[in-house]
Formats: sequence, C-alpha cells, structure tokens
Amino acid sequence: MADFPVPGFTGSPLVRIDIERDNQPYLEAAISDPRSRLLQLDGLAPVTEAHGGLSWGSLAKADPEAPLALLGLLDDAPRFVSLTKVDRSGPDPRMAIIQSCAGMPAGDAGTYAAARSLVDWHDRHRFCANCGRVTTVRRSGWARFCLKDDGGCGTEHFPRTDPVVIMLAEYDGKVLVGRNIHTMQGKFYSALAGFLEVGESIEDAVARELFEEAGVIVKSVRYVTSQPWPMPSQLMIGCIAPVESDALTLDASELNDAIWCDRDEVRAALAGDDSARFHMRFPLAIAHTLLTAWVNGA
Amino acid sequence: MADFPVPGFTGSPLVRIDIERDNQPYLEAAISDPRSRLLQLDGLAPVTEAHGGLSWGSLAKADPEAPLALLGLLDDAPRFVSLTKVDRSGPDPRMAIIQSCAGMPAGDAGTYAAARSLVDWHDRHRFCANCGRVTTVRRSGWARFCLKDDGGCGTEHFPRTDPVVIMLAEYDGKVLVGRNIHTMQGKFYSALAGFLEVGESIEDAVARELFEEAGVIVKSVRYVTSQPWPMPSQLMIGCIAPVESDALTLDASELNDAIWCDRDEVRAALAGDDSARFHMRFPLAIAHTLLTAWVNGA
Repeated sequence: MADFPVPGFTGSPLVRIDIERDNQPYLEAAISDPRSRLLQLDGLAPVTEAHGGLSWGSLAKADPEAPLALLGLLDDAPRFVSLTKVDRSGPDPRMAIIQSCAGMPAGDAGTYAAARSLVDWHDRHRFCANCGRVTTVRRSGWARFCLKDDGGCGTEHFPRTDPVVIMLAEYDGKVLVGRNIHTMQGKFYSALAGFLEVGESIEDAVARELFEEAGVIVKSVRYVTSQPWPMPSQLMIGCIAPVESDALTLDASELNDAIWCDRDEVRAALAGDDSARFHMRFPLAIAHTLLTAWVNGA
Repeated sequence: MADFPVPGFTGSPLVRIDIERDNQPYLEAAISDPRSRLLQLDGLAPVTEAHGGLSWGSLAKADPEAPLALLGLLDDAPRFVSLTKVDRSGPDPRMAIIQSCAGMPAGDAGTYAAARSLVDWHDRHRFCANCGRVTTVRRSGWARFCLKDDGGCGTEHFPRTDPVVIMLAEYDGKVLVGRNIHTMQGKFYSALAGFLEVGESIEDAVARELFEEAGVIVKSVRYVTSQPWPMPSQLMIGCIAPVESDALTLDASELNDAIWCDRDEVRAALAGDDSARFHMRFPLAIAHTLLTAWVNGA
C-alpha cells in the first residue's frame, strides 16, 4: 500500500452506539445526563472555537421545537445535534464550510460531517416518499417512520448516502485530470467523478464514467481510499484505472478540457506551485489524497 | 491482486447513455424504434428464456399506464423497462429471484439488477420527501421531479443506492464468519456486514461494524471488490481487515455465533463439502467472492 495522508472528513472519534438507538430509556437518560453536549451549528455550518475545533454547548440551549439526534459518545459523554429546520434563503455557505473544516483538529471534520448530513437529510425528508404523509423522527434521530397508528403506511426511512466514484485514468506513466464546464477558464483541474448508479459495482461505475466523460476504455480498477463528503451526503470512492489508450473524446456537457500529467506535474500541482501545469482546490477533498497516493506509487 | 471470480450482478454490457436521458427527441425516437425491446418482468422478478437469460419483448406490450425507463443500449438497440406499480401482497420472491439470477448468462444478472432497482425505487418513491406532493417521472426514467408548475417545491429525486460494508476480520491466518440471529441453528455462516452511515468512509464503517458486532479492533482495511445487490439497491463493498486480537464480544442482537476459520476450512466451505465447518449460501453473493479472494491470497 502506498503512503498517503488520511482523506479529509474521515476518522471521527465518535462512538456511534447504534445498539442504543432503539433504547428509549437510554435516550432519555442521555438527554438528562449533565455531561451531555449539543453540537453548535449555524444553519448547516459549523460553529468553531478559537482553536478551530467544533463548539459544544448545553442541551438546555437546544431548540425545544426540534427533535434531538444522538450522534454518539465522545470522551464517554453523549453528544447530540438538534434536528432544526434549515433556512436556505441565504447565499450558498459551502466554500466557507470547507475552509472551516480544513482548519479543524483531526477527527472534528468527520464528526461535523455526520451531524451535517443528518440534519440536512431530516430537513429535506419530512414526508413519506411512499405515501406523502408527514413522518416522525425515530431511532434517536437516525430514522423517520411513517407511523401506521397516525394513518401512515408504516414505511421506515433511513438517512441517504450517495456513492460517487472519483478516479484517475492512467496511461504510460500519466494520469488524467479534467476541468469542469463550470470552470470556464483558469487552471483548476481535478480527478473525474460521477454518481454510481443502481445496478453498478464500483468497478462498473468507474469504467462507465471514464468512457462517458473522456472516451477512454478501462482495463482494470484499483481502489485507493474513500471519504464522506457531507454536502449533502456523498461517499467518495477514490480509484485509479489503467486505460487502453490516451486518445480522448470529452463529454462537452461535463468537461471543457482534460490533460494527461506525469508525476512531476502532479507533484507541482499538489505543492501549489504557481507555475504548475494545473491547480487544485481543497486539500480536504479526496482528489488531493488520490493524486498524492499516485505520485507515491499507488 | 489476488485471483478471484467476478462478483455476481456485475459486468452488465448495458451502455447507459446517460447523456441522452434529458434528450426528449432521442427518447421519443427510441420508443418508436422497431429494434427497441422491453425487459419482461413478473412483478419485480425476472422472466427468463429457456437458456436462462433475460426475456425481452415488444414495447407494444408495455402497460400503457406506466412510464417507460430507458435502461440503455444492448447490441446497439434501445432497451426499456416499464415503471409499473408493484404488487407486494404475495410471499417474498427473493429466494426464487436469486436462484434465477444465478442461472443467467454473464452480464444478464447485472442488467436485471439495474432494472429491478429502478422499478422498485419508482414504485416506493412516488411522493416528494421534501413537501409530500406526487412527483413526475423525468430524465427518461432516471429521476422524479416535484414540478413547480404543478404546485410542487421543485426538488429533483434520484434513485437511491445504499452502500453496505461486508468484511472479513483477519487474525493469525484465520478470518471471522458469523451466523445471523435469524439463522438460529444450522451451519450457514457469512462475512459480517452493515450499512455505511452518513459521515463515514468505507474504512470508518468497516472498523465500526466489526467493533460493534464482534468487539474486534481493526488495524487496517484492504478493499477487495464490490457488487450491486438489487434487493432493493445496495452497493456491497467487500473488504478484509486485520484486527488486533481474536477475542470476541458478539452483539447478540445481530449474531448468535462467530468462528475463526483457516484457509482449509474456508476452502471446504466454498467447495460445499457436507463436512465443512460452515456452509455458505448464494455463490452470487459477494461473501463468496471475498472468501475465494482470501484463500487465493487477497
């Protein structure tokens, strides 16, 4: 296994205690436990302390109208987040959130990722997709039930995680990075990526996406690493895929450029050199880990 | 990379032509193309031909009340499935479906997996989870929209795929297989597994699940392979994880037994020997692939 840094948003020390989620007496005891703490959020954005870490407050400050979700234990103390309604009327806070997470101590970004995805999912899934009725929070905040005794259909709904494959096509000692159509100019390039679809393995999805976006035919797929990406709740699955040829046919609806880069060119990009052949965003993103792993021999 | 068979349900030859899904004239031309074919389903179960392969019929036979989904192209001909309402009142057809898929020519089970997950998702997601209104099929059957001009909230909904980690804890030349509480007696054992949660990487989820279910502490995680499991739409992610000790603390709500097995014992189980220490179900399932990979050196 090649050497590479742990991807951003991984390695939260949260102990999720899934086994207690259906234990109502446990939940009630945790809520009245004086050691319990509430994650502070500003909408969906993290509130941070002076050292950059997550801010935890008293449960007494929780919105009394919003159910509490039991995230798990940290330092043996129960940790909660409030499942509030989210005001989405302002500007997209994504860039500020990513910057804030990049400055957090190890593990905090992962804890935030779990909480953010959970709050966001509840806010956007208040109704039963099967019958249209309002659903009710259950399992200590980890599910919503369409309650039969409330006239519902009995369906249970669980938070959603969407797998995304993100990959480097590899040919003759070079890898492929692409520029998204939303980046019309400039030097920001990254690994190609796309949502895995129903009926696909990771390997199937990597082959399909590279063929669709760049017209290259995959010979094999090497898994490298993964990360959660909490905007809103992707599972990013990082792979390297040797391909049959370096001839490209770009999907103009996705990419406006793609270039093959050798290890020195990738090293310069990772180092943030002004003169590098391309620039990268977000060290927190798995594309950074994937390219680092590749230059180190993955 | 160790030698192992391709997991079941992978490798469909379907060309998904995602790029055409928003192209209404393409869809209409495909529907009136005489080469187009409709996948035959009996509810959610596959209809098979004498040779065991999927059965394809004329689009003229499609339920006129049900929208058509464009699966993609096979042999350059458009392939559809009908997004019918599913009658779930009968007995669970899962075992018969798995047996039917196991007898299909390579690739057919993967094509069926995509179609089955899509039909099932539409049937159980007719309403908007964000506002409760009835949604409308769009993107050639690959999405549902909560149409604003119909009084809806404008949310787009895409088919859901749930990542599941399935893994072998490994210690001192042995791997761990467990017996589910629903298998009270008998010798059916398998790899441990569980749903990946929001805010987790694959590696995080493997470590959590093995600790929760068996009380073992993971040292590292090796990805092996993956498969779609279309009942209803999981992505099974197969891993091997060396652990710190072979001392077990089982979660009695999940497992009623777990045993450490060496390579000879696993080989006997894979061969289906009556006298093997444990027995396995479903060669189509990734647990089979994972154990085969492990005995071959993965």
